[in-house]
Order: sequence, then C-alpha cells, then structure tokens
Amino acid sequence: MPKLKRGVFLEIKLKNNDVFRGSFFGEENGNLILKLENGYNVGFEKKNIRKIKTIKKIRAVKKRPSGKKIKAPDFRVLLLLTGGTIASKVEYETGAVRPGLSKEEILELIPEIGNIANIDVQEVSDILSENIDGKTWRKIGNSVFKALKNKKYDAVVVGHGTDVMHYTGSLLSFMIDGINKPIIFTGSQRSSDRPSSDSRINLISSILFAREKIPGVFICMHGSVEDKTNVVINAVNARKMHTSRRDAFKSLNQKEIAIVSYKERIVEIKNRELISFLREKFSNEKLRLNNFEERVFLLRFFPNMDENVFNFLKKKKGAVLEGSGLGHVSDKVIGKIKSLARKTPTYMTSQCLYGRTNLNVYQTGRKLQEIGVLGLEDMLPETALMKLMVGLKKFRKKIELDNYMTTNQRGEISRTSKVV
Amino acid sequence: MPKLKRGVFLEIKLKNNDVFRGSFFGEENGNLILKLENGYNVGFEKKNIRKIKTIKKIRAVKKRPSGKKIKAPDFRVLLLLTGGTIASKVEYETGAVRPGLSKEEILELIPEIGNIANIDVQEVSDILSENIDGKTWRKIGNSVFKALKNKKYDAVVVGHGTDVMHYTGSLLSFMIDGINKPIIFTGSQRSSDRPSSDSRINLISSILFAREKIPGVFICMHGSVEDKTNVVINAVNARKMHTSRRDAFKSLNQKEIAIVSYKERIVEIKNRELISFLREKFSNEKLRLNNFEERVFLLRFFPNMDENVFNFLKKKKGAVLEGSGLGHVSDKVIGKIKSLARKTPTYMTSQCLYGRTNLNVYQTGRKLQEIGVLGLEDMLPETALMKLMVGLKKFRKKIELDNYMTTNQRGEISRTSKVV
Repeated sequence: MPKLKRGVFLEIKLKNNDVFRGSFFGEENGNLILKLENGYNVGFEKKNIRKIKTIKKIRAVKKRPSGKKIKAPDFRVLLLLTGGTIASKVEYETGAVRPGLSKEEILELIPEIGNIANIDVQEVSDILSENIDGKTWRKIGNSVFKALKNKKYDAVVVGHGTDVMHYTGSLLSFMIDGINKPIIFTGSQRSSDRPSSDSRINLISSILFAREKIPGVFICMHGSVEDKTNVVINAVNARKMHTSRRDAFKSLNQKEIAIVSYKERIVEIKNRELISFLREKFSNEKLRLNNFEERVFLLRFFPNMDENVFNFLKKKKGAVLEGSGLGHVSDKVIGKIKSLARKTPTYMTSQCLYGRTNLNVYQTGRKLQEIGVLGLEDMLPETALMKLMVGLKKFRKKIELDNYMTTNQRGEISRTSKVV
Repeated sequence: MPKLKRGVFLEIKLKNNDVFRGSFFGEENGNLILKLENGYNVGFEKKNIRKIKTIKKIRAVKKRPSGKKIKAPDFRVLLLLTGGTIASKVEYETGAVRPGLSKEEILELIPEIGNIANIDVQEVSDILSENIDGKTWRKIGNSVFKALKNKKYDAVVVGHGTDVMHYTGSLLSFMIDGINKPIIFTGSQRSSDRPSSDSRINLISSILFAREKIPGVFICMHGSVEDKTNVVINAVNARKMHTSRRDAFKSLNQKEIAIVSYKERIVEIKNRELISFLREKFSNEKLRLNNFEERVFLLRFFPNMDENVFNFLKKKKGAVLEGSGLGHVSDKVIGKIKSLARKTPTYMTSQCLYGRTNLNVYQTGRKLQEIGVLGLEDMLPETALMKLMVGLKKFRKKIELDNYMTTNQRGEISRTSKVV
C-alpha cells in the first residue's frame, strides 16, 4: 500500500468490486479509514482492498465564492449564549476580561459558520460561569429543552464559560431524558475579540460535530495546544484539567467521543460503544425535563480534617464526598458521616479522579458501606454531584436513589476499567 | 553508529583517546548516554567518539553467590514503617487488607535489599494512611529528623500508605529545614504478601535512588504499569492520580526527579534544575524541625455552593481554597470569604490541578485579591495546605506568611509554566 497523506482524496476498489470514494483519514488496527462524501468514516480491511487510486492530492476546502450568494445549509442550529469568555471582551483600560460581546459581534467574527449551518442565536444569560446558580441552570435547561422539542432545530450549541462548563454539561445530561439531538457545549480560553482566541475554531468544530447527529450532551474544545484538532467529550466524563491551556478539557475514565479536524471538516468518531449506549438509552426514555434539588454539597476529604464540618452537611438533602484512594476517609470522620448518612443520602467518589472507587478492599471502605455510604465507581465527583441533584427530585425512596446513582445512565460509569 | 540495546556493556574510545566503560543507557539530544560502573550517567557527544566496542551483550546482574556471605554495603538506610498497604497483609477469611506485616516479614520478602544497603528498620506507627493525624505526623517528623542528625544514616526511606502519602511527604518537606539527606517515601498498591505486590520493586528502587545522595523529600513509586521503571517525584509536586494502578503517582506542573530501572540498577536523573534548586536552598538553611498548626481547612469551590460553609472555616487558623479555572469562586461566596480572610489567612489554588492560578485576568479574581486572598501559582491544593500548616507556626505577621506562601521553598511553585 502506498504511503498516504491525510486528506488525500482516494478511490478504493474492493475485491468484491464495490467502489468507495473519500478522503484518506488514517489507519486504525490495520484498517484504512476513509471519510466518505456523505460525512461517514468507514474502515476497510486491507485484505479486502483490490486497488487504491489517488484522485486529488488534497481535498479542496470549499470556499465561499466572492460576490456570489450561497444558499444557507439545511442543517439548523440554535446557538445559546450563556456568557463566559466566549462572549467576553477585554476591558482595554484594565486588561481584564468582561462579559458583553453580542451575538451579532460573534457572528461577524466567525462568518464561516454560515457555510456549515443555518444558525439562530439566543442569549440566555450573561454571566461568568463560576457565578452560575440554580436559576441560570433552569434557564439554560428550559432553552435547550425547547430547542429539542422544536422541529426547526437539528442541534443546540451552548456557548458557556469554561470554568464550570463540565458541571453544567453534566447537569443537563441528567436533567433531560430522551435527548434526541446533539447538545454541544463550547467556550473559549481566550476572549473572542483577541487575535489568539480559540472561540472561532471551537464554534466551527462544535457545529461540524453536531452535523453527525449524535444525541447527547457533549463538550467540544481544543484537543491540543495547536489549532488543528478539537476533542469532543461526553459531558459527564469531562473535566477542566488546566487553568489556562486551550486543550484544558480531558475525558477521564472514558475514551473521548470524537476528534474534529476543523480545516478538513473531518469528524473522526473515537468511541462508538459509548455512542451506541447513549442512542439506546435515550431511545428508551420519553423526552422530558427533570427538576433538580439545589441543597447538595460536595466535600473533599483530607487527612486530619476537622470532622465537625459534617454537621454543616446535615442541613443538606444530599452529599458527595471525595475520599482518598479507593474512596477512603479517616476513622475520625466516619462517626460523623454515620449520623449524616442516616438522614442525608451520601455517596463516595475519589479525589484521585482516575480509576474506580472500591469500598470492599480496606477496613475503612467496609465501614463506610456498613453505614450506607455507597461508592460511585469511576464517576467524577462533580458529575456525581449533578446526578445527585437530579436524582433527589426524581426518586423519593432511598433504595431507588441508590439504584439510580450506582447504575450507568449517561456514560458516567464506565463498563470496565483497566486495573493494572 | 550501530543500533544499541539498552543495557549492553560498551567500551567507548573518544577522539582525545580517553576510554570509558559502562552499560548503554540511551540517547539524549544526540548524545550517547553511558551508565558508568561508579553509578554515574555520562553523556558523550557523538562527534567526539572515535570507536564503540561491545564488551558484553547484556550486563550481568550481580547475584548473591549462594552459600557465600557477602559484606553488607557501606550505604546505610533507616527504613521507617508507618503502616499502609506496604506493611499490610490480606485477611484471608474476608479478603480485606489489614495493617500488621512486621519488619522481619518485610525483609524476608525482599532479601535483595541487603545487597544494596545496610538497613535498619523502625516501626513508627501502624495505621492506614487515611487515618493519619497530627500526632502521627509529629512522630514521623521526629523519627526522620533524628535520622538526619544521626551520622550513622545516609538516607531515610519511609514506608507509607499511598492514599495520603503526598500529604505527609509535602508536610515533611516544609517541616524540616536544611534537609541534608534523601528522604524517600514509598508504598504499595498491592499488599506485600501477595504475589503481584509492587512493594519489592518500590523499596529496592527507593534505595537505589537514595544512593544518589540528593537531599530532599521524594516519592518513589511505579513509573508505569509494567514492573520495569520507577518514578521519583519531588513530594510537593506529587499527587495520587489513580485509585488502583501501580503507577498512580504523577508529578504535576513539574518534571519528575528521576527514573529508576531497578533490574539494571540505573538511576536516570530527569530534573537537574530542580535538584540544584533544592541543594542550594537546603545548604542555606540550618537543619531544624518546625512545628505545624493543625487547625486548617482545605475547601473546594463548586458552582451554586452554599456560602454558609465559610462560617465554619472562620474557626480555623488558615484556609486553602480550590477555585475553578484560574482560581475563581462565585460572587455569592466572595462576601463570605471577605469576612473569613479578614481573620483567617486564606489562599487560592485551582481544582484544575494543572496550570497556574491567575487572579488578574477576570473580575472575580481581582475581587479576591482586593479582599486579601492570594493565588498560589501552580502549587497543588494539598501541598498548599501542608505548607500553610508550617507557615502559620513559622510566621506571626500576615505579610511574612504571605511572602512565604507565595515564594518557592521546595519546588512547589515552578519557575515557568508554559501557557499555550
């Protein structure tokens, strides 16, 4: 087989005489991957290929012909702006970043969007994401839900501050049952009116991924520090893992959903298993918007911590703890957690972030189980908190809530996790 | 140059006719690296090499000749056991892991240690690390400090539970001034009496690194899931990043100190800059053991959190917060933090873990600075907590404490951090 460059346009003739045309996308497990013109990536086993012909060296990127009006594409996207850096501008007198960029300004900055989707823009809120509260979460949830019911839209893209984007994304994953369209959160680590802003590529990539029509809530941000590829992450597996880098978001304990090469307009699906799970899950649910409980708390354990903090947690309706290692806390705090858990449903995650809790291995974990604290497998602490908020309103009985919390609903618990 | 396999024993003749013998260790920036028999790794510029001769295919690993008594090596190590999995055994009736393996049993399980160092074993405590408290930390600190003063010992290796090993390691880094010997924390992710236990390799690798005589507090654990290399991390940069994998510990925001190949007995130094910094820092301090303040708290911010938790923090002598992104919290909690910070020194880190806080970029950060909350650069949250514990006893004036907290003492703040 000749050495192929990514993007080269090929014609492949199989031994059964089928012919496929598309741009070369790479190799995976010895299969040749072609991006077909209908947008699908298809893998071909090499032993089945009779002949490969190069048609064009590099697939030409369609450019809007100057002076000519082109028809807006059929794919319709609602772009919801909630604030954050993506909708921020720099306050030139101080150098600080403030919310305030209008929807018109954003579309003016990124005219390419018009070539790949027909866009409506709606401003939901105008806050920096760390200020997000129950009221704003409800507003976002309602707007997204309306768009899912509205036949006019094929997808929703949510511009959101990156600081807590994964919290909001997770919450929406659990808030909405029967998700029938792609809901893609994106943002920017640099304000949109700065030359180095990543918002242009992030928005374009989000829409390119939206066109794959995969239902679910996703985060689409830079996949590397270069402006070449974006990563699409299932929101419940996403975490902001760097304070400033453009590729701050990582998929933890789960493979990313897709990689988007925005220039070549290629979407490479990376996790078909998770996508199948989501499709099946959503198809078995009725489209519906759930309420959520706001009186919850997320607390990180640390050694020698003052156990009296758990008295404060008793006022809450639910608690998520970040234990050490497999999900441990000190014996000193277990007494307090016992009286907390009697009243307030309390669940255990790990501050390690990677890997699975296991409360069966050590004495400490076994004591926690005895007092009714369940481990949440490899669910991220912030995801667990958001899930608990929804679960507390969905289920009245503790046993039903326990069952909901410990079973995989949105990909937040991975089926297997390699333990080596 | 011939293609060389790692471990092959070579004789290198330079153009200036100098001759060196040692095992091939790899290439770095085009230089050939040789592990000399004296233990040093030396790099040779290829243009200076006249001739390379292979002496032995793979350097034979010295084995203790059976029946012969060998002299104990001159290098003397105090092995302090504090509990944790490394000193645990499986309770066979339940399958759970319990502390209790004695020092004799450990030495019986790992006889190779006798070939590389002359060991004394001392049991300091017998608890699982999540139960560690001020009293045990003081015991460990005292035992380590005594060994540093005792001319009999060249190094201290501390067997510690992995769950909070990085907390204890960080604390000791700040507790002891003028550190004059290597202090190496190690542990096990599998109990020592199980066949798959990693404790044997971890203990051997710790002692091999100790023989490099680099002063400081380090963590030495598996560097990969294979049993081939161990990683040595400066304790203040270490974090347990996986619940169960043997290579759970990672060096965050700072390059690791060294890689140890235990079979070949090769220690590859990876961060000479940090080692130089530590050497200089310690040589300017007097050997001394500092006290620490226990009434501190580490709290993670999350969106929509109940701000009344900060009333609880007011009872503390110091607080470390884990903000979102660059070190942010919601406007709602800023009011509470303002009254907290008036009385209790409060510092900001980031829950992203990777990257640097920056309270200058956004309004939220600027508000925090105005109320006296300082960002701690790229210091890890748990490291910041341990540093604050020591700082609170070391300095009476807030301005002195602020200066201590925001300047690099042990490598906890990296000099530069790539922002891309």
